[in-house]
Amino acid sequence: MTKPSSKYAVLIASGGMDSTVTAYELRARGSEVSLLSFDYGQRHRTELDHLGKIAERLGVPHQSVDLTDVGRLLGGSALTDASVEVPDGHYSDQSMRSTVVPNRNMIMLSIAAGVAVSRGADIVAFGAHAGDHPIYPDCRPTFFEQLGKAVQAGNEGFLADGFRLEAPFLHLTKADIARRGHELGVPFELTWSCYKGGSVHCGTCGTCVERREAFTLASVADPTEYADRAEPEASR
Amino acid sequence: MTKPSSKYAVLIASGGMDSTVTAYELRARGSEVSLLSFDYGQRHRTELDHLGKIAERLGVPHQSVDLTDVGRLLGGSALTDASVEVPDGHYSDQSMRSTVVPNRNMIMLSIAAGVAVSRGADIVAFGAHAGDHPIYPDCRPTFFEQLGKAVQAGNEGFLADGFRLEAPFLHLTKADIARRGHELGVPFELTWSCYKGGSVHCGTCGTCVERREAFTLASVADPTEYADRAEPEASR
Repeated sequence: MTKPSSKYAVLIASGGMDSTVTAYELRARGSEVSLLSFDYGQRHRTELDHLGKIAERLGVPHQSVDLTDVGRLLGGSALTDASVEVPDGHYSDQSMRSTVVPNRNMIMLSIAAGVAVSRGADIVAFGAHAGDHPIYPDCRPTFFEQLGKAVQAGNEGFLADGFRLEAPFLHLTKADIARRGHELGVPFELTWSCYKGGSVHCGTCGTCVERREAFTLASVADPTEYADRAEPEASR
Repeated sequence: MTKPSSKYAVLIASGGMDSTVTAYELRARGSEVSLLSFDYGQRHRTELDHLGKIAERLGVPHQSVDLTDVGRLLGGSALTDASVEVPDGHYSDQSMRSTVVPNRNMIMLSIAAGVAVSRGADIVAFGAHAGDHPIYPDCRPTFFEQLGKAVQAGNEGFLADGFRLEAPFLHLTKADIARRGHELGVPFELTWSCYKGGSVHCGTCGTCVERREAFTLASVADPTEYADRAEPEASR
C-alpha cells in the first residue's frame, strides 16, 4: 500500500464518451490515471475493445475485471439478459428502466475503491452526468455522496491522504461532455455507446439517441457510423 | 424483479461461525434464506466447501461467486497474497491489520444488494460482530449505516418494500454468537474459521484464537480439531 506523491486516479471506464472524456479531464487536472473496466456479460461488450484502443491512445494502464459470474446473478436487465430486448427511444424515457443493471455502479465503485486502497491512489473517479439521473438511481448525486461516506468509513485508516470520489461531470449534461471532450482533443471515433452490441452503432437505442443528441447540441462533429442514419427526433 | 410475500434474505456467508449462526438466526426470525459466498482467491478457500455442507444441512440455496479476478487486484493482504504471512496472535492485535482485504465487505455487500434487487429480496444480511470492529473498519456500525444509505439511494425505485441491511450480531461478541448458535442447534463442526487454509484449524492464527476463546467464554463445547492443542493465552 504505497503512496505515490502526485494525484493518482482509478477511473471506472467503459469505452463510452463519458468515461473517456473523464479520463482526459483527470489528466488535464494533473492526475495520473489508471482505467478499470468490467466485463459483467453486457451485450455491448465490444465497448471493452474500444476502451483498449483509448487506453493505448492515452498511454495509460487499463485492466479489465471479469465479473461475468456476478452478471449472471443480476438478471432481468436488457443489458445482460438476452431474453430482454434493448428498447429504442429517448435515453430519459421510462422504458429505459429495463436497461438498469441492479446496483451496478456501486459494485464497480466498490471494487475501484478496493483497488485504490491497495495501490495508495487518492481518487476514485466515475463519468456519471446529469442526463443519467432520471433513469439510473446509481448515477445520482445523493447516491454518490452516500457512497463516498461509506467508502471513507469502510476503509478508515487505510486510505491515501486526501482520498475522495470524483465525478467531474455529475452536474453537467452529455452535451457539455461532448463540448469539453472536443476542447481536450478526445478521439470520439474510438468511443462506443450503443447498447445493442452490433458492429456499428444502431442509432436508435437510448444511448445512441443520447450520443447523437449530445454532439448536435454541442455543435461538435459526430464521427460515428450509425446503422440508422435518420436524425433522432429530439435533435431535429 | 418479483416480490415474494414473505421475508427473504440474501446472506453473505463464508462457512465460518458468524455467518452460519446468522443464517440460523434469520431462519428463526421467519426469513427464507439464500447464501451467497465469494471466491476472491482467499488462502482459506476451504471455507467454501464447508459452506456447501452447511447449506445442505440448512436446506437452503447457496451460490458461490467467482471474484478471483477482483482478488488479484486487491494485493497486499495476508489472506490473498501468498508472499504475506498470516500472523499468529490475538484477533484484536494491530498485527492483524495485514489480514484486511481492502474494501472487501463493501464489494460483497454491493453484489448481494444487486442480487437482492434482482430477486425482490427484502433483506441483505451480514454476520459482522463487535469483535471485528477494532481491526476491520468495514465491519463497524458506522460503515454499515452509511452503506445502507448508499444502497437505498443507489436503488431508489427498485427495492422490495421494507428493504433493509441486517447484521443481527453487529453489537454482540463472538462469545454471544457461540451461545446463540448453541441455542439454535448450529452444527459448529461444519464451520471453518482458520485463515491459514490447512486441512485442520491451526489453532494459533487470529481467527482460530478468537474461535477458541468464544467457545470457552460461552461455555459451549468446541468440536474443532486444532493442529496446536495448547489453549490460547486469552482464554486461560
